[in-house]
Amino acid sequence: MVHVAILGFGTVGSGVAEVLTQNGGLIDRRVDDLVRLKYILDVREFPGSPYADCFVKDFSVIEQDPEIDIVVETIGGATIALDFTTRALKAGKSVVTSNKELVATHGYELLNLAREHGCSYLFEASVGGGIPILRPLTSCLAANELTQVTGILNGTTNYILTRMIRSGLTFDQALKEAQDNGYAEKDPTADVDGHDACRKICILAALAFGRHVYPDQVPTQGIRGVTLEDVAYADSVGYKIKLLGRAIRQPQGKVCAYVAPHLVPGENPLAGVEDVFNAIAVTGNAIGDVMFYGRGAGKLPTASAVVADVIDIAKDLKKDRHNGWEEGAPDLVVSSDILSSPWYVRAQCTADQARLACGEIHLLARAGAPAGEAAFLTPPMTEPQIRDRLQGMEVGSLFRVLA
Amino acid sequence: MVHVAILGFGTVGSGVAEVLTQNGGLIDRRVDDLVRLKYILDVREFPGSPYADCFVKDFSVIEQDPEIDIVVETIGGATIALDFTTRALKAGKSVVTSNKELVATHGYELLNLAREHGCSYLFEASVGGGIPILRPLTSCLAANELTQVTGILNGTTNYILTRMIRSGLTFDQALKEAQDNGYAEKDPTADVDGHDACRKICILAALAFGRHVYPDQVPTQGIRGVTLEDVAYADSVGYKIKLLGRAIRQPQGKVCAYVAPHLVPGENPLAGVEDVFNAIAVTGNAIGDVMFYGRGAGKLPTASAVVADVIDIAKDLKKDRHNGWEEGAPDLVVSSDILSSPWYVRAQCTADQARLACGEIHLLARAGAPAGEAAFLTPPMTEPQIRDRLQGMEVGSLFRVLA
Repeated sequence: MVHVAILGFGTVGSGVAEVLTQNGGLIDRRVDDLVRLKYILDVREFPGSPYADCFVKDFSVIEQDPEIDIVVETIGGATIALDFTTRALKAGKSVVTSNKELVATHGYELLNLAREHGCSYLFEASVGGGIPILRPLTSCLAANELTQVTGILNGTTNYILTRMIRSGLTFDQALKEAQDNGYAEKDPTADVDGHDACRKICILAALAFGRHVYPDQVPTQGIRGVTLEDVAYADSVGYKIKLLGRAIRQPQGKVCAYVAPHLVPGENPLAGVEDVFNAIAVTGNAIGDVMFYGRGAGKLPTASAVVADVIDIAKDLKKDRHNGWEEGAPDLVVSSDILSSPWYVRAQCTADQARLACGEIHLLARAGAPAGEAAFLTPPMTEPQIRDRLQGMEVGSLFRVLA
Repeated sequence: MVHVAILGFGTVGSGVAEVLTQNGGLIDRRVDDLVRLKYILDVREFPGSPYADCFVKDFSVIEQDPEIDIVVETIGGATIALDFTTRALKAGKSVVTSNKELVATHGYELLNLAREHGCSYLFEASVGGGIPILRPLTSCLAANELTQVTGILNGTTNYILTRMIRSGLTFDQALKEAQDNGYAEKDPTADVDGHDACRKICILAALAFGRHVYPDQVPTQGIRGVTLEDVAYADSVGYKIKLLGRAIRQPQGKVCAYVAPHLVPGENPLAGVEDVFNAIAVTGNAIGDVMFYGRGAGKLPTASAVVADVIDIAKDLKKDRHNGWEEGAPDLVVSSDILSSPWYVRAQCTADQARLACGEIHLLARAGAPAGEAAFLTPPMTEPQIRDRLQGMEVGSLFRVLA
C-alpha cells in the first residue's frame, strides 16, 4: 500500500483528494497497488468533510510517519512550502507539487535533495495546469535537441485579452469581469504583470536546456499596456495579441528567456488559443514544432496532473527519475536585446515619419483612428535598434511580432 | 552499451539512423549509456551510405546476435513485419515501431509476447507521427477516466481538405498536388478512404479504454465525397470540413469508434489544424479537454518519436512497461448509429421540404447555388433517424457536425 499526505486543502489540494477518491479504482489498477490518502495538513477546520479523519495540523506527524511515501505540496509560495518540502525530502518521502514559485526559485536544490535521499520531486502541475508538458518535454521529445519553447502560460491574462479582442472590453473592464468570474485574484499582480508566466517559462527553460533559470534573470512585461487601439490594429491584419513566455537556445549553452505581449499571426496555432486555455509550443531539431493545449488552471485539471505524478512515483517508489537540471549562473541568461523580430508600433507620427524612422513598414488602419496616430509593423530588428529609431517619437505601444 | 538494429531503410528507417547519429551525444547522456546502431536490414544496396558497414540482408543475423537489445521495425505492413517482430520479441529483444497497421491488427498478441519474453513493444510513432500522444495518454493522463478521443489523424487528407478550403481546388486537383509534393502516395487509397486514420483510432481506443479495437470493427468513410460546394456551405457559418477519427467510451465497457468527415465549428481548436498537421483531442473526467498538435508524418518527426521509445527502453532494458491492453471482442464496439449529433445535409429540395423533413434547421447559403439545392444543419439526431427523415430526397452530402 502507498500512503499519501496532502499539504494544504485549498483549490488544488481538495481537487487532489477528490481525484484520488473518485478515480481510486482506476489509480490502484494503474499502480498495481493500493494508493491511499492518509493525511491532509491544514490549519483550518473542515467539519463534515468526507476526509474529516485525515486532517492534521502538525507537519511533524506526516514527517515522522514511516508509512507516508508521497507528500503532495499544494500550499504555494516559497516559505512554509520550502520548509515542509525540504523536511519531507530529507525524510526520504517523495514530493509532488503544483507550486511554480517554489520550483522556479528552489528547483535545483530540491531536485538534488531528492536525489540525495533516494526519492523524487515532481511538478508536472506547476506548468500548464493539467496539460501534459513537462514529462513529454523530457521523455517523448528526448531524442531532440530542443531549440525553443514559446507558450501562453497564464490563463487569467489570456482570458482578459480574449475579452478585449472578442467583446471590446477595456483592460480594466475585462480584469473586473475575470475577478467576478473567479479567474483572477483580488490582487491580480502575479498574473497581470507576467510574474506567473515568468516562473513557468523558467521551469520550461530549465527542463528544455538543462540549467536553472531564475525568475529574476528573465525580463518580464505584463499586459497592462495593451489597449483596445492595439487590439483593433492587430485585428486589421488578422493578428491576435497574446502574452507569451519564451525561452530560446543560444550558442555556448546560453539561454534567452523573457515574457512580453506579442502580436501573433492568425495562422500560428497559438493565435487560436482563447479564454483561460494555455498552450505551449516546443521546437526540436528532429520533431519540428509540436504544441500542447488545454486548461492551464482549475481544480480538477491541475489535480489530474498532480495525481499523474503521484501514480508515476507510486509505481516505483525507489526509481531514480533523473529529472534534474544543473545549477544556473549569472551569465547563463542572455538579454532579449539580441533577438531580432518585426515590431508593432503605435505612435504619434505621420506615415512618412514612420517610414523615415523604420524603413519598409506595413501601415495598419483602424476605424476611428485620430489624425496624427500611426500604427505599423516594422522589418525585423533588435529592441535596441527599434528604440533607437523611435527616439523622439511619442510611442504609445511597442510589441514584438512573433515571426 | 545498448545496440540497435533497424529493419527497413526507407523514409522512417533512414530518419531513425540520422537522429541516432546526429543527436547521439544527447541520447547517450539521456540514457546514461552508449546507444549504438549496429545493423540495418534492407534488401537493397546503399553504396556510399554513411551506414555502409551496418547493412545486412538476413534477419537471422540480427535475431541471433545477443548484443542486439532493441529492434526498430520500419518495414510497414503486417506480413514480413509481423514475422520479424514476433521473432525479435521471442529472442527477448525489445521492438519499437511506427507501423500502425501491425499494431492495430496484432497489437494485443505482440504486447503479450513482449511481456512473456521480458522485453517491450513500443509504438509511439504509429499515431500522430512525432506528436507525443501515446505516452501522455497512458502516463500523464493516468489519473483520469478517459471518455473520448477525437483526432485529425491523417496528414494527407488534411492537406487535401486545406487546399480545397483555402484555394478552392477540387478534390482531384488537391490530391494531384499532394501527390506531386510527396504528401500522398501514388495509390492514395489508404489515406483518402480513411484506412490510415482507422488504424490510428484503433490504437488510441485500445490505449484509452483498455481493450483491442480491430480496424474491421470501425466504420470508415473517407473524403472522396467532400465537394467544393460542401466547403463553401461550411465556410458560410465559419465551419471547416475535417476527417476525424473518434472513439467514445460507452456504458458497460463498450466503445463507439468510427472515421468520417465532419463539419467542425471554427471555435473548436481542431478547426484551425491545417496542411499536413495532425491534432488529437482527449477528454478525461478530471482534466477536461487537452489537445496535442504537430506534424503527423515526415521522416524526422516520426524518427523523433521512434528514438524517444528507443531511449525509454535503453534506460531500463528489463522494465515491465505494463503498456498492454486486453483482448477485443466482436461485441466490444457498438455502432456509431447510437450517436446523436447535428448533421450537415446538402440535397435537392426546397427550404420548406427540408424543414418539413428535419424540423428546426439552420439554412446555409453559398454564392452561385443553383435553384433546387438546399444545404442546412439539423438538430441533433442519430444516423438512422436522419436517414429516415431524408428518405425520398436526393441527398448530395451528409456529414456529422462535431458538437
